[in-house]
Amino acid sequence: MNIRMILRIVGIVLLIEGTGMVPSFIVSLIYAQGDAIAFLISILITAASGFLLYRIPVRNGKFYARDGFAAVALGWTAISLFGSMPFVISGAIPSFIDAFFETVSGFTTTGSSILKDIESLPKGILFWRSFTNFMGGMGVLVFTLAVIPSIAPGSIHIMNAESTGPSKEKLVPKLKETVRILYTIYVVMATCQIILLLIAGIPLYDSLVHAFASAGTGGFSNRNLSVGAYGNVYAEVIITVFTILFGVNFGLYYRLINGDIRGFFKDEEFRFYIGTILVSITLITIDLYTHRFFTLGQSLRHSSFQVGTIITTTGFSTTDFNLWPTFSKIILVMLMLFGACAGSTGGGIKCIRILLLLKTARREIARIIHPRAVHTVKVSNRVIDENTVNKTLSYFFIYMSLFFISVLLISLDGKDLVTSATAVLATLSNIGPGFEAVGPTGNFSDFSAFSKLVFSFDMLAGRLEFYPIFVLISPEAWKRGNI
Amino acid sequence: MNIRMILRIVGIVLLIEGTGMVPSFIVSLIYAQGDAIAFLISILITAASGFLLYRIPVRNGKFYARDGFAAVALGWTAISLFGSMPFVISGAIPSFIDAFFETVSGFTTTGSSILKDIESLPKGILFWRSFTNFMGGMGVLVFTLAVIPSIAPGSIHIMNAESTGPSKEKLVPKLKETVRILYTIYVVMATCQIILLLIAGIPLYDSLVHAFASAGTGGFSNRNLSVGAYGNVYAEVIITVFTILFGVNFGLYYRLINGDIRGFFKDEEFRFYIGTILVSITLITIDLYTHRFFTLGQSLRHSSFQVGTIITTTGFSTTDFNLWPTFSKIILVMLMLFGACAGSTGGGIKCIRILLLLKTARREIARIIHPRAVHTVKVSNRVIDENTVNKTLSYFFIYMSLFFISVLLISLDGKDLVTSATAVLATLSNIGPGFEAVGPTGNFSDFSAFSKLVFSFDMLAGRLEFYPIFVLISPEAWKRGNI
Repeated sequence: MNIRMILRIVGIVLLIEGTGMVPSFIVSLIYAQGDAIAFLISILITAASGFLLYRIPVRNGKFYARDGFAAVALGWTAISLFGSMPFVISGAIPSFIDAFFETVSGFTTTGSSILKDIESLPKGILFWRSFTNFMGGMGVLVFTLAVIPSIAPGSIHIMNAESTGPSKEKLVPKLKETVRILYTIYVVMATCQIILLLIAGIPLYDSLVHAFASAGTGGFSNRNLSVGAYGNVYAEVIITVFTILFGVNFGLYYRLINGDIRGFFKDEEFRFYIGTILVSITLITIDLYTHRFFTLGQSLRHSSFQVGTIITTTGFSTTDFNLWPTFSKIILVMLMLFGACAGSTGGGIKCIRILLLLKTARREIARIIHPRAVHTVKVSNRVIDENTVNKTLSYFFIYMSLFFISVLLISLDGKDLVTSATAVLATLSNIGPGFEAVGPTGNFSDFSAFSKLVFSFDMLAGRLEFYPIFVLISPEAWKRGNI
Repeated sequence: MNIRMILRIVGIVLLIEGTGMVPSFIVSLIYAQGDAIAFLISILITAASGFLLYRIPVRNGKFYARDGFAAVALGWTAISLFGSMPFVISGAIPSFIDAFFETVSGFTTTGSSILKDIESLPKGILFWRSFTNFMGGMGVLVFTLAVIPSIAPGSIHIMNAESTGPSKEKLVPKLKETVRILYTIYVVMATCQIILLLIAGIPLYDSLVHAFASAGTGGFSNRNLSVGAYGNVYAEVIITVFTILFGVNFGLYYRLINGDIRGFFKDEEFRFYIGTILVSITLITIDLYTHRFFTLGQSLRHSSFQVGTIITTTGFSTTDFNLWPTFSKIILVMLMLFGACAGSTGGGIKCIRILLLLKTARREIARIIHPRAVHTVKVSNRVIDENTVNKTLSYFFIYMSLFFISVLLISLDGKDLVTSATAVLATLSNIGPGFEAVGPTGNFSDFSAFSKLVFSFDMLAGRLEFYPIFVLISPEAWKRGNI
């Protein structure tokens, strides 16, 4: 491991984080609820620590995949640790474990919370809370690639480790340029959403908070009742549409900008994603309506909002879907597993992987029927190499393994089976809420400190798609010969 | 597809089934509870149908893998249909769907039941119910290979389709000889268990029923309270030990008989299986004891029994484990997924697959740390070929997919999440009981006819490890060119 280089990168990330706290500091000054000093201290400590790490002299420029993975995992751990300072220092969340959980939940764009009364917190703190959603959405380390002198050949490893999906491709030959394009799309889309929310009559502060949380598919709201607090159908439609848009592979938007409309709509993952959304909305609408939960219009409204916010792993709510019929709940659980598209800000297993897995399963049957034929797996008319197929299959198993191990660990708290299982699912897929005690009206405050650490681990592991975290904690990676 | 040959094989299977009904007929004559006539009619119809199918002239001897898979799937469907006759004709289970569910549950050695009061049924009927566990345990079509003139080169496909585990191996060069060895071990072990249960003071009839259900890892008891009805600690120990023994790969016993004691204990799947059992017993014992459910002795007694009966997918019970703490329940759920060893009579994903999957996951991390090294997956010091690794990964995904689709379908009944999920798990892994409404004190009677058909499909799919059933229902397999 190139420890010096890794620490230097973490230093840069902390410098960015310190800068990222400035808007929240300004908000805290405007509302003057006594949290400004907490931001000032946090900014100084974060920036100073970042500067010290950045100054570490680097002895060699060798930067392998394992270094990239470790840098990403360590960078995310560091921003979560430093990012929890405003919560602790301001006294908004006195317990460090709770503040750490909330910050990890923010950066990983999960949106699970330990807060019982969100609205009692200062505006600056809540602004920071949602801003972590925005920063985490597109990735923090990838951002470093756009602003710092490139780490030459090693920077691709950082991109690979932090961005999502089974196979990564650069949009343009230059990595730095790719990153800039992605961030521009991200910021422009979020700005559009803010403007539309303002037009719909949502106050500026609330519009900013909800746009940050939508863009990152995080789901942190400044209202106890989440988006349901407004009872504003326009705002709900805007948020539904934008969360779904933020769940699309950003590379596709680049295609669209370049006039490749056909390529956009022909993308198989996109079609699968939109198809899943439409089928789910239809089924849940029928289920809610036939069970007399709502009128037909209300059923469509709530099912659309919830399907959009769950498949994109945002996790807002307009109603307590914990009370919905079992059939609708099972569909939501499946959407929690699916997640959004690769290369989006959403979490979960990702639609492309589910699609690939389904095609691989179908191939297994074809192999028995025609044992001598050559069977390949194709997505968007391109043959997927066997290595990617294999990695995707392994990914699914690792996801389920971590799910079961985590449920086992947190079941020591003695919560019921549904709470335990969906709490892990909600954190591992970076959703936010689950069912029962962690449903839309509940929260994660009642879990033990140990369980909260397990959840934090799961949120980081889920967001970074496991391997960076595993490499970081693998003894093999830190063996003498590898350092 | 060689339809004529397939139908002929089904004919032979039905002839065997008709013969298999004779012991139950005798029992019904002894107890004279009015069910003898139902057996007589069933035997005649089954044997006559079998004979007619057997007489179909076969035009060509080509028998591919797909034919073997289809024959196995069709054979199992046929024995389940004909096997439900005694239940319906005797009036013990008047509904055909219910009787079919119960018979599929018997042959697939699941042990899930729609019966609310088992003890009210005639002895002959209950004997048949448990005898289906015994017949299904080692496989019905494999048995045909031992008694009929071999179908020459095609018979290996039947063995592959019906026996369990990712890679099949013959014990001796001759397939027929292999089958005879396996069945001899099976019958001798079951006989030992019967004798030991008699010594423990269990009546002959009950000893037979419970030995059949243990041998097949089915779990059908003739008592409403299952094994708990006896309150006999010796019987519990005997059943615990024997279910665990029936969950071991029978190929290993052949090694043991040939004096290869070292090979027996060095087998990695066996070690993983025993290790999982010991760790689970320890954890559950501690959990039950610290939650003051039982004394330490009782905790050990119930946890050992339940771990043994669940990991082997037998599904007996001595206590209502549905009331146990969440931690213990999660362990039981994981054991339901694991299942027993390949080549045993148990169900589930199988220990060898879990072991292989865990090793493959570890390899993925090693690949990132050392991208240039060659990484193989080894089990029992033998390199597993990549094709098997790939198939195993796919198998896991298919298992989980079928699980979720089934839960979605049966959730239309509106049962709670835990009942819905564990009911599917219990049938797909061929366990028997789940939690909540399908727990040890519950049953499957309240589900709709549609759900019972879904469960029946899952039991068959789980027992036959998916592919035979998928090939049977795949339109591709029945295309003109393939017939």
